[in-house]
Amino acid sequence: MTRHFLAISDLDPDQLLRLIRRGRDHAAADPRQESRLGLRGLSVAQLFYEPSTRTRCSFELAARRLGADVLNLDIDTASTVKGETALDTAMTLAAMGVRLFVIRHADAELIRTLADALPPGCAVLNAGAGRRQHPTQALLDMITLDEAGLDPAALSVSIVGDIRHSRVASSVIAALQTLGCRRIRLGGPPAFLPETTPPEVECHDNLADTIRDADVVMTLRIQRERMQAGELAGIDDYHHQWGLREATLAKYAPRARIMHPGPMNRGVEIEDAVADGPRSLILDQVRNGVAARMAALEWLAEENQR
Amino acid sequence: MTRHFLAISDLDPDQLLRLIRRGRDHAAADPRQESRLGLRGLSVAQLFYEPSTRTRCSFELAARRLGADVLNLDIDTASTVKGETALDTAMTLAAMGVRLFVIRHADAELIRTLADALPPGCAVLNAGAGRRQHPTQALLDMITLDEAGLDPAALSVSIVGDIRHSRVASSVIAALQTLGCRRIRLGGPPAFLPETTPPEVECHDNLADTIRDADVVMTLRIQRERMQAGELAGIDDYHHQWGLREATLAKYAPRARIMHPGPMNRGVEIEDAVADGPRSLILDQVRNGVAARMAALEWLAEENQR
Amino acid sequence: MTRHFLAISDLDPDQLLRLIRRGRDHAAADPRQESRLGLRGLSVAQLFYEPSTRTRCSFELAARRLGADVLNLDIDTASTVKGETALDTAMTLAAMGVRLFVIRHADAELIRTLADALPPGCAVLNAGAGRRQHPTQALLDMITLDEAGLDPAALSVSIVGDIRHSRVASSVIAALQTLGCRRIRLGGPPAFLPETTPPEVECHDNLADTIRDADVVMTLRIQRERMQAGELAGIDDYHHQWGLREATLAKYAPRARIMHPGPMNRGVEIEDAVADGPRSLILDQVRNGVAARMAALEWLAEENQR
Repeated sequence: MTRHFLAISDLDPDQLLRLIRRGRDHAAADPRQESRLGLRGLSVAQLFYEPSTRTRCSFELAARRLGADVLNLDIDTASTVKGETALDTAMTLAAMGVRLFVIRHADAELIRTLADALPPGCAVLNAGAGRRQHPTQALLDMITLDEAGLDPAALSVSIVGDIRHSRVASSVIAALQTLGCRRIRLGGPPAFLPETTPPEVECHDNLADTIRDADVVMTLRIQRERMQAGELAGIDDYHHQWGLREATLAKYAPRARIMHPGPMNRGVEIEDAVADGPRSLILDQVRNGVAARMAALEWLAEENQR
Repeated sequence: MTRHFLAISDLDPDQLLRLIRRGRDHAAADPRQESRLGLRGLSVAQLFYEPSTRTRCSFELAARRLGADVLNLDIDTASTVKGETALDTAMTLAAMGVRLFVIRHADAELIRTLADALPPGCAVLNAGAGRRQHPTQALLDMITLDEAGLDPAALSVSIVGDIRHSRVASSVIAALQTLGCRRIRLGGPPAFLPETTPPEVECHDNLADTIRDADVVMTLRIQRERMQAGELAGIDDYHHQWGLREATLAKYAPRARIMHPGPMNRGVEIEDAVADGPRSLILDQVRNGVAARMAALEWLAEENQR
Repeated sequence: MTRHFLAISDLDPDQLLRLIRRGRDHAAADPRQESRLGLRGLSVAQLFYEPSTRTRCSFELAARRLGADVLNLDIDTASTVKGETALDTAMTLAAMGVRLFVIRHADAELIRTLADALPPGCAVLNAGAGRRQHPTQALLDMITLDEAGLDPAALSVSIVGDIRHSRVASSVIAALQTLGCRRIRLGGPPAFLPETTPPEVECHDNLADTIRDADVVMTLRIQRERMQAGELAGIDDYHHQWGLREATLAKYAPRARIMHPGPMNRGVEIEDAVADGPRSLILDQVRNGVAARMAALEWLAEENQR
């Protein structure tokens, strides 16, 4: 059976730990080292039905560092002009010899349908789908915690912001729980809290209770479009109530390390002093993003070559 | 004299057979094999003045598997902003060291003009031009027939759809006739039949007569834009009269294999059961497209290196 | 301290001569030679906030010929959708392991700010900024003069056209003066002459006085947008007064070699007979552009690796 990487919850703790270890090895390695070209001769296609330069570049660098060829499909130009379905696009690329499909799409079901339809030997990596799944983001966060010497099983983790619409949040919660994390708190304005609270997770309606004594605080990107749509009172108001500021952290969560999936809205969900200060793990997350994607690509290539 | 690949009719039977054999070798080879990097250090530029993700990806994979660098020029962004002519663009790229030019353009004459103007050692591959020429598409179709054990000289081939506006059709007819095919039938609504019937070819005004007892039926993509422009009565009507359906094929052409240059309009010129059924050679065509382009690129690189 | 390449005037004569020599070596080398892969394993990102296919392709070919990976960021799509600042984009790419940043931006100050902010080991190449700086263009022009056997210290160089808005002109003037050139004349309509004449440079209001007995005449691209905005009387008028025509050159500057940074407006600032004639160094400039960028990339990679 072909192995894909569609959701973090598809992995058991051992599988996730192996991927974390593999990612840490890549993060520690010299990018100029020739011997890591494990994907040489393999073709990777990136199908991004939602734009994300950051994630696309991270996957592209990961694939190229492993020696793969990378095809970037600009889907706006590509399929709308001639009206080809996503399934025909994927099947066509598979027939052309593409073996690894990095796909971002608003519809998580579609990605699973593609994975089921592709011929044996072709693997799908979910690069962000729907509101729930962004498995490589969760993997890079776990690699970053591990690198910082933080064991999820012993941590209190707080997630702040638009939890409801965030595939980052739900993927990270799943990864943390897989690794035994027992204390996860979520906080944000009512419209941003999840409709159904995940098991063993607390929700709060104020920042102090959300982050008090947390070891790790992850804040999420506020989509300005939502604010313009009137779901939020305003940017200043959000920053005042939910923005991560050094003064608040010093008071309520003095030892907390800070994470953010990027790109940041500085002055909205986070102030510069926090983003760029000593608590911040944000650039480590970006760095480990490439390593996480190398680990995931390499793992799928190996699993499907047997 | 520099060798280009502008039209299938520029090749004599021996040259075409050699390209087919070369393409079959590439199709059979393992893409991860290092020894095929015959274009290493060569730069290929893709100039697509009409969008075609499918053909661009096919050429890009072909070039990369041979070790070449590939530059993709987004011509909308590129030349309209600064108003450079296609000739200056090509001459500039040649001066930068590009040796192989993969060009798609609405104007077939322009491609020939570029080929004539480029300095020695620079070769042009026509990736689709005007209404007549798409030589690598014809090549991949011949490779696919060969692989399926079908000898064009002994075949009855039917082509259905918008023949008049199709460079695929005219290129395939030329390739089949070069290889000795004696029975080619064309069929479609009156507005889609060619203004001048090619020699030794029959035209029909109904599907049954077009495909009766054919060995191979190739159907062409219906451009929805044409239907919207009122040239066709409607999609349902077209599907009813000219769409390839398993029931019709079983009745009139029971042993026929099916080809389509893609991308398909499912439910218009072809139904799912035919596209995805055992008669279909459609994904073989896509797979052999990469092999055909590898063969063509390699051939031009060799011819022009002497 | 990290070494960047932001302005030609940052180089002393020895440094500039070393870069010219290095560029000439690359220009003379066989692109298929394997041993020049000095950037293998390094990642280069191209951030073009103003479109320029020509410069982007030149850098891309240069980087790939040295074995680097190249990421092209389409900034329109990229950063406007999610509103990330240029600084966060650059820091993110640096965290992903990008070491060389090729940046074009309307604001020269911004490029310097990015260079200052990036972590050690990350170098910025200015690929055109503001109205003053385009250092690799000046470098390729100096390589082209050297290759043509022309020593700047002994030359009379004339620059014709829109000097005021041209970063090419000001960069070339700086390079020529660094190499000891004592006779530089500028000419163009009043609205195109510089607000402040650089030291030891003459300005003229007619073509004859600008180019009389010059060894080299460089003409600049007329931006049609400016003409439409009414800054110029009209295209025909400009061509009549300031266009380089063989008849004028034969009369006033019979031994002059002609340069143009491209892309050309044929029939406006230059006629075909001059652009394509024996005086023209224009395609040599394009060819040497790749060599110049190879020299610059390699130099920065070496300087920052120590």
